[in-house]
Amino acid sequence: MGFLTLNELSMTADTPPRGFPPMEFEARLARAQALMAERGLGALLLTTEPDIRWFTGYLTQFWLSPTRPWFLVVPAAGKPIAVIPTIGSETMARTWIDDIRTWSSPHPTDDGLSLLIDTLSEVAGAAGAVGLPMGLESFVRMPLAELDALRARLPGVVWQDATPILRSLRQVKSPAEIAKIAEACRIASDAFDRMPEIAGAGMTEVEVFRAFRIACLEAGADDVDFLVGSAGPGGYGDIISPPTDRRLQSGDVLILDVGVVFDGYYCDFDRNFAVGPPSDAVRKSYETVWQATEVGIAAARAGATCAELFRAMNAVIAPYADLSAGGQVGRLGHGLGMVLTEFPSIADWDRTVLEPGMVMTIEPGMATAPGRMMVHEENVAITDGAAVLLTRRAAPEIPVLST
Amino acid sequence: MGFLTLNELSMTADTPPRGFPPMEFEARLARAQALMAERGLGALLLTTEPDIRWFTGYLTQFWLSPTRPWFLVVPAAGKPIAVIPTIGSETMARTWIDDIRTWSSPHPTDDGLSLLIDTLSEVAGAAGAVGLPMGLESFVRMPLAELDALRARLPGVVWQDATPILRSLRQVKSPAEIAKIAEACRIASDAFDRMPEIAGAGMTEVEVFRAFRIACLEAGADDVDFLVGSAGPGGYGDIISPPTDRRLQSGDVLILDVGVVFDGYYCDFDRNFAVGPPSDAVRKSYETVWQATEVGIAAARAGATCAELFRAMNAVIAPYADLSAGGQVGRLGHGLGMVLTEFPSIADWDRTVLEPGMVMTIEPGMATAPGRMMVHEENVAITDGAAVLLTRRAAPEIPVLST
Repeated sequence: MGFLTLNELSMTADTPPRGFPPMEFEARLARAQALMAERGLGALLLTTEPDIRWFTGYLTQFWLSPTRPWFLVVPAAGKPIAVIPTIGSETMARTWIDDIRTWSSPHPTDDGLSLLIDTLSEVAGAAGAVGLPMGLESFVRMPLAELDALRARLPGVVWQDATPILRSLRQVKSPAEIAKIAEACRIASDAFDRMPEIAGAGMTEVEVFRAFRIACLEAGADDVDFLVGSAGPGGYGDIISPPTDRRLQSGDVLILDVGVVFDGYYCDFDRNFAVGPPSDAVRKSYETVWQATEVGIAAARAGATCAELFRAMNAVIAPYADLSAGGQVGRLGHGLGMVLTEFPSIADWDRTVLEPGMVMTIEPGMATAPGRMMVHEENVAITDGAAVLLTRRAAPEIPVLST
Repeated sequence: MGFLTLNELSMTADTPPRGFPPMEFEARLARAQALMAERGLGALLLTTEPDIRWFTGYLTQFWLSPTRPWFLVVPAAGKPIAVIPTIGSETMARTWIDDIRTWSSPHPTDDGLSLLIDTLSEVAGAAGAVGLPMGLESFVRMPLAELDALRARLPGVVWQDATPILRSLRQVKSPAEIAKIAEACRIASDAFDRMPEIAGAGMTEVEVFRAFRIACLEAGADDVDFLVGSAGPGGYGDIISPPTDRRLQSGDVLILDVGVVFDGYYCDFDRNFAVGPPSDAVRKSYETVWQATEVGIAAARAGATCAELFRAMNAVIAPYADLSAGGQVGRLGHGLGMVLTEFPSIADWDRTVLEPGMVMTIEPGMATAPGRMMVHEENVAITDGAAVLLTRRAAPEIPVLST
């Protein structure tokens, strides 16, 4: 990884190509094996969709099915080895991976475990060190009984938490990755721009969500994997709800928070709308979080810590937040990429130093009254200079939908 | 749970109501606590979206974010206790759950673990038995280091695999659940009916997928969470791929396999299309899997085992399948509901006895040549009589898209 320069991030109007050249995966693997060598790891064992896709390019929605476990073993030298159900072999064979070991899954008595143990023994040795993500924001995607059996049947293996390695690898994006995130942001920005045309008073939340999903697809989305939000008179109290059958009415504030997917990469940002003319209180809350976002974007520079970024934004919103009203989400933004939310956290306790190539949500939010909050969000890429805005910046005054 | 009768499944043209009445959750909890009592369990500990939603009705797309763990503790008596991040408290408070314990998450040093340990100790006792899903098709959604710490810090607790309980509970659906699955099936059936109008030769796979997603939304989908498929001359070799930029051309066979979501419930079925007039070989393969589906639907009756259902379908396709070509998916169908694929498996090794209220995919597939397969799929509800088809039955001859 060199520094990401503004030049490398030259955005064009063209749709980025799908997939990545093998060179990209070779570079990723080299970074990983350097970190593995520092820690004396003989192998990494990966079980989740983003970790496996990061190393292989293996992209499928089939992960939605919890039925089958999937494994990737990354050796200290040489290319990763896929240990996967037969149903995935054709798709995996189209990636840059050569060594694909399969079993017919689901299997009632040995659902890949023997094959995995053989592979790990071969790669790391019976007394080797194997890295497995165990830390915060991770989980091991295989049955617990199988995981415990794996550890019991490899009693000489030393298991190390690989979360710091995966965090370090995945949180710094390549220009090709950032171009995909930027495309997802462009698509959702186009769809948000159409909101006054497609949504207004009298529509139910369900209808608004559906119209917005269609607008995202029409703007070029592969999928609208994440869409939450809500509306209420003078504000909303909850930003993670599914839509209801309640109709928008004059005086409502509506928030939509969307994760559009382009070629396996997400945007994650929101927009607020007033239904009919906003009250002074709504206007003021909106301006406060909009201004905090300005401050956040300016502060999002390589070398700054996440905690410093948090404090810069918090200084803007704290005088206006109703702390007694609760509603804290624990942070004012986070990493973004192959997953909707990634490392690091823009939080008072996160000392991660921002680096060129990180992609972050800048997401100041505050409770404005009991059961009422206002949240704002943009996506930026950190460079060797100023942060590059990937989203089309929200208007400084809350947009109004017709009544 | 009584028997599900055909009468209870009277399908209407009306959109089913969202959510469930508290009575439904009370009945579910009573079933669960009866099974817990049989096994002497003081508590169940649940960590995944479907398990927690089944007990609470808690519905949000926020689970897409891996950042935070969520816990539900089901006691031997009394209502479940939610141990969740603060950001979820408003949405959880709208369910029938009263006891909601929260912490500000993400937290760098204690991300809910102490609160969970206190709750489990209170509910199950320091030497109680706690059920945790550990078996096939399950995983524990929390960091492994935290899970190991949980077990270490409750040394007296006996951990039991709760997979059989969850399987038994979730695989038999209520009439209200089946109505939601039926609505998802109706929506996708409507969208498939429009395929000749919205797709044809010259469109890329990406464009076809996008047009089909829009058609599903226009037909009433909340989301099109799962959409895979592929196309190729004379057939496809892979059913789990994302779409490519390749253009459909005369002689192609296209498959789309879709999981439309309505109020948190899925359909899961596919449709095949010929681009221009199909070859005799394609026609014959299609008719074979169509006929195997007929046999499967007829055999899907309460009292039959999944293995018997597998064999009935396999007898139809085996004479035509190219076994040397591989491509087995390991089973010819599965359960369906809050997740795209659920227990049980229609496989030679699965002795599960079909019961009224189960919802199953009937999904015969076969390799027809190296790199070529044909798969067919319908969704049915098992009743006290004949299975009820929830999908609109595919045409007996392969539908043709224009060239």
